[in-house]
Amino acid sequence: LITAETAADWLRGLKRQANTHKGSYGHLLILAGSAGKTGAAILAARGAQRSGCGLVSLCVPYDLNTILETSLIEAMTVPLPTSSSVLNVSDLATILKHLDDKTAVVIGPGLGTDTRTAELVLYLYHSVKQPMVVDADALNILARHVDQLRTPAGPRILTPHPGEMARLIGRNATEVQENRLDAGKLCYHRFKKKGRELVVILKGAGTLIVTDNEQVLINTSGNPGMAAGGMGDVLSGIIGSLLCQGLSPTIAAAAGVYLHGMAGDGLYSENGHGFTASDLACNLPRCLKQLLDHLS
Amino acid sequence: LITAETAADWLRGLKRQANTHKGSYGHLLILAGSAGKTGAAILAARGAQRSGCGLVSLCVPYDLNTILETSLIEAMTVPLPTSSSVLNVSDLATILKHLDDKTAVVIGPGLGTDTRTAELVLYLYHSVKQPMVVDADALNILARHVDQLRTPAGPRILTPHPGEMARLIGRNATEVQENRLDAGKLCYHRFKKKGRELVVILKGAGTLIVTDNEQVLINTSGNPGMAAGGMGDVLSGIIGSLLCQGLSPTIAAAAGVYLHGMAGDGLYSENGHGFTASDLACNLPRCLKQLLDHLS
Amino acid sequence: LITAETAADWLRGLKRQANTHKGSYGHLLILAGSAGKTGAAILAARGAQRSGCGLVSLCVPYDLNTILETSLIEAMTVPLPTSSSVLNVSDLATILKHLDDKTAVVIGPGLGTDTRTAELVLYLYHSVKQPMVVDADALNILARHVDQLRTPAGPRILTPHPGEMARLIGRNATEVQENRLDAGKLCYHRFKKKGRELVVILKGAGTLIVTDNEQVLINTSGNPGMAAGGMGDVLSGIIGSLLCQGLSPTIAAAAGVYLHGMAGDGLYSENGHGFTASDLACNLPRCLKQLLDHLS
Amino acid sequence: LITAETAADWLRGLKRQANTHKGSYGHLLILAGSAGKTGAAILAARGAQRSGCGLVSLCVPYDLNTILETSLIEAMTVPLPTSSSVLNVSDLATILKHLDDKTAVVIGPGLGTDTRTAELVLYLYHSVKQPMVVDADALNILARHVDQLRTPAGPRILTPHPGEMARLIGRNATEVQENRLDAGKLCYHRFKKKGRELVVILKGAGTLIVTDNEQVLINTSGNPGMAAGGMGDVLSGIIGSLLCQGLSPTIAAAAGVYLHGMAGDGLYSENGHGFTASDLACNLPRCLKQLLDHLS
Repeated sequence: LITAETAADWLRGLKRQANTHKGSYGHLLILAGSAGKTGAAILAARGAQRSGCGLVSLCVPYDLNTILETSLIEAMTVPLPTSSSVLNVSDLATILKHLDDKTAVVIGPGLGTDTRTAELVLYLYHSVKQPMVVDADALNILARHVDQLRTPAGPRILTPHPGEMARLIGRNATEVQENRLDAGKLCYHRFKKKGRELVVILKGAGTLIVTDNEQVLINTSGNPGMAAGGMGDVLSGIIGSLLCQGLSPTIAAAAGVYLHGMAGDGLYSENGHGFTASDLACNLPRCLKQLLDHLS
Repeated sequence: LITAETAADWLRGLKRQANTHKGSYGHLLILAGSAGKTGAAILAARGAQRSGCGLVSLCVPYDLNTILETSLIEAMTVPLPTSSSVLNVSDLATILKHLDDKTAVVIGPGLGTDTRTAELVLYLYHSVKQPMVVDADALNILARHVDQLRTPAGPRILTPHPGEMARLIGRNATEVQENRLDAGKLCYHRFKKKGRELVVILKGAGTLIVTDNEQVLINTSGNPGMAAGGMGDVLSGIIGSLLCQGLSPTIAAAAGVYLHGMAGDGLYSENGHGFTASDLACNLPRCLKQLLDHLS
Repeated sequence: LITAETAADWLRGLKRQANTHKGSYGHLLILAGSAGKTGAAILAARGAQRSGCGLVSLCVPYDLNTILETSLIEAMTVPLPTSSSVLNVSDLATILKHLDDKTAVVIGPGLGTDTRTAELVLYLYHSVKQPMVVDADALNILARHVDQLRTPAGPRILTPHPGEMARLIGRNATEVQENRLDAGKLCYHRFKKKGRELVVILKGAGTLIVTDNEQVLINTSGNPGMAAGGMGDVLSGIIGSLLCQGLSPTIAAAAGVYLHGMAGDGLYSENGHGFTASDLACNLPRCLKQLLDHLS
Repeated sequence: LITAETAADWLRGLKRQANTHKGSYGHLLILAGSAGKTGAAILAARGAQRSGCGLVSLCVPYDLNTILETSLIEAMTVPLPTSSSVLNVSDLATILKHLDDKTAVVIGPGLGTDTRTAELVLYLYHSVKQPMVVDADALNILARHVDQLRTPAGPRILTPHPGEMARLIGRNATEVQENRLDAGKLCYHRFKKKGRELVVILKGAGTLIVTDNEQVLINTSGNPGMAAGGMGDVLSGIIGSLLCQGLSPTIAAAAGVYLHGMAGDGLYSENGHGFTASDLACNLPRCLKQLLDHLS
């Protein structure tokens, strides 16, 4: 079980030393958003910023750049010249150039499943050396091409909700929910490649995490007020941010899931449901501080 | 009379169970907005999000997509390829595809009354199976084509203010206000089709609701600080959201109207008039919680 | 002297009756903004909305519509088809059509002084029957064409700061400041036309108002924290809003000026300078309530 | 050492007299931002506005104007007709025209290092008479053309972080950090031109300032929660704003650095890290007031 105590202990490494700068806390690259779904990219970025990531950049389709720059003052964007409404593999070279100095990657929120986007996702899943959080439509793309997946070049964290998990393991959502532990383990085994760290997060009430050595963790924070659009996007940003700040994939996943639920719990107990994913992101610093103060 | 007690009782079904997800709280489709009036669409979406709707999508004219995506982070949009500044029936196929998995529909805020929009509204009024909140310009369109209206395929909630009501029943606004009950009943009979649930909401001080079996309800919440642009748009979103969360049309209408007025009352008693419709939407969670806490 | 007591007394008419609707509080048309100066239009609209105007619409150059719709959720815009970066007299017909049902007009903030804009301003200054607040660049345009001005068709409120006043009366700003009363009276006599109400507001510390019968009023609210861009734009919106709510030009001007300064005073005493014009607009409802509560 | 006492004393000149107007507090011109990095320009402007600058204008690439006008309501922009995604020397004439009536200049945040931008930066560094804050990419441009730099026409404040400093003095960042004082002095001597005031600010924990007569100041405010994207952009805006309000380059630099750190300290002690640069800008007025209240 993941509790405030375990989460606080895992986050110990986030306590900041005086003599540090923004480079000390990593640079996250987010590959997310498509026409109609830019909000997912925005929310992932906010999750990252509000949990202490040093720098956040997003590669975005050219036509959507105005939306993203207007909504994300503190992040940088890379408008991709040949991607108009979705991320297109034709911009691979530009993306690879920008990947070079990044600490971690989030891929998937609001991406859509266009063929040209799918090619890009599959290529990056395979070749990126940095730890990568794979979420939402990137998971739907993996699900359709399980047979094509080769050993990834770095650690991977998959963050399916039950519907996405169903697609990943070829079952339906009801079956997944009836036996969440089995689903999590099955997914882990299907995507695990020797020598590469893998973490599977099955979201939903009592989020379940399967990590290497088949260690299983179950989250105790969170509430049904978080059953609203965009909450998962914030989570992917949080985990990416914790990776950037030097936590291991397993700990970033487990502590991130707890922190995310805790931020929702604060809002839920205060005003019930009807809070937004943006509200949740804004509540992260307060919760993070509460956990870190716990330690001393 | 609709009071805090009756509203709380009706909203009992909104108490959330632990083991639920965003799909449990429905997916609302909003058809609203045109060049110059995108705010109406934004406010309907905010009303829905702040009253607990699981997911909110909007079909929007292509040229207005940047405005809507920038303003609505947690909602998704569908930029309609052949609609430039108003919703155009030429995009019917795209709209129908996106209607498929939706729980309820809001149509009308800020739509304008262009001929091509009117064709779309009339077609959807007739053919959509899901419960549909019909507001603002969609009502003005219905008013001009009363003779063409055929039996709708699902429940309908009409939400005219006195001016729109006047157009719907062929009187003037003064006559409507002089006998609001008569106006409400006349409208109900004019639009009621056998076998299809109909709710008529006549907005204004003491909002009046006429439902099947000619049940009449009168709201007790609300205040003249709400006499400002955009307040009605938020109401349509609230009702759509309550439909998405499983309430019946009559109860969604009655409880929605009470909740809307209550959110305005909180703002009015605190700071008098000069609050905006966005402010009102933000105040919804607190009021909803107060009503639900009432129950236990 | 304008004090809290006199302002409260003048604002008595703003106390709201239960049985009213947004139409009861007027519809303001704002003609403001140009490429690079859309903020002025936004701030005028916010001043109007936050002081209780029923509805606010803005006629805006087509290319700037995205900016204005994104920033003003509760207002409506009319994108002018042939005005690209500035308001152009070529769109006169559209503007006149939209003027028809408006209660009052604000013209000038951020307009620029393009020749084609000047033609529009001069035409409207002459022909609009509704009360009109003339501010900023509209004043600069009047100053250049004093000899062309004919009797306006309705009441006019001019709101120059010392620099604009200097241009209006052909002096320099230092001369204006050395004898503000003389400047105000001189301006009044230069622009007064028989049978048309005129109010001249000379802004600056101790804002001075000259009205018909040469009545002179001096404001006692306000502070040097308000010496920042955009504050005047909010004032023009407030006065337009008070006109819409039925106050006479003199009272709208005098009470508006007091309310504006009072909203700034609240912010200044709390946090010193560094507040923005948007902050000031948000503080209006609280101040308005305080004044109205004064009365009972 | 720069402490609250020294900072308050330096800021004494910011206490506002009643009989002042926005012109009394200067007009800042910001040259910043490029496609993907408009946030840097926005944050510099917010830093300036929140520390009391009278007026703020930005010269911006034409295609980015919508983003900047939407995000900066109280500032004015000058959309440069021939600059599309970066500031281009081809718009020099327009920029010079707008420089005429400005009190101070900030150049650099988010500019990029395009050749055509570099030409512009070098020209302005040389020829602008007003005090100029040179930050971020403008520093990177100077670093590449040290040999071309001629005597500037006015005071210059350079604000490198250790990485930028390394480029300016031809070392690496580790060397800079190992002996910050040496690096600061070396940079000062490399860029100092006879008869022109120069201030070098080496950012990072314990920000160090080298000014004329080799006076060295070390800041005592600030915290590692400020190690996030955009914080430096806010600082450049603050210093520009203090210059506009009449402080000397040395005092604007020293007091600005203290104020910036103090605003971060307030946020850090309240909620730990995870605050944004926008949050920091919003906290400036409160800190400024605290310092000024200190004096009386």
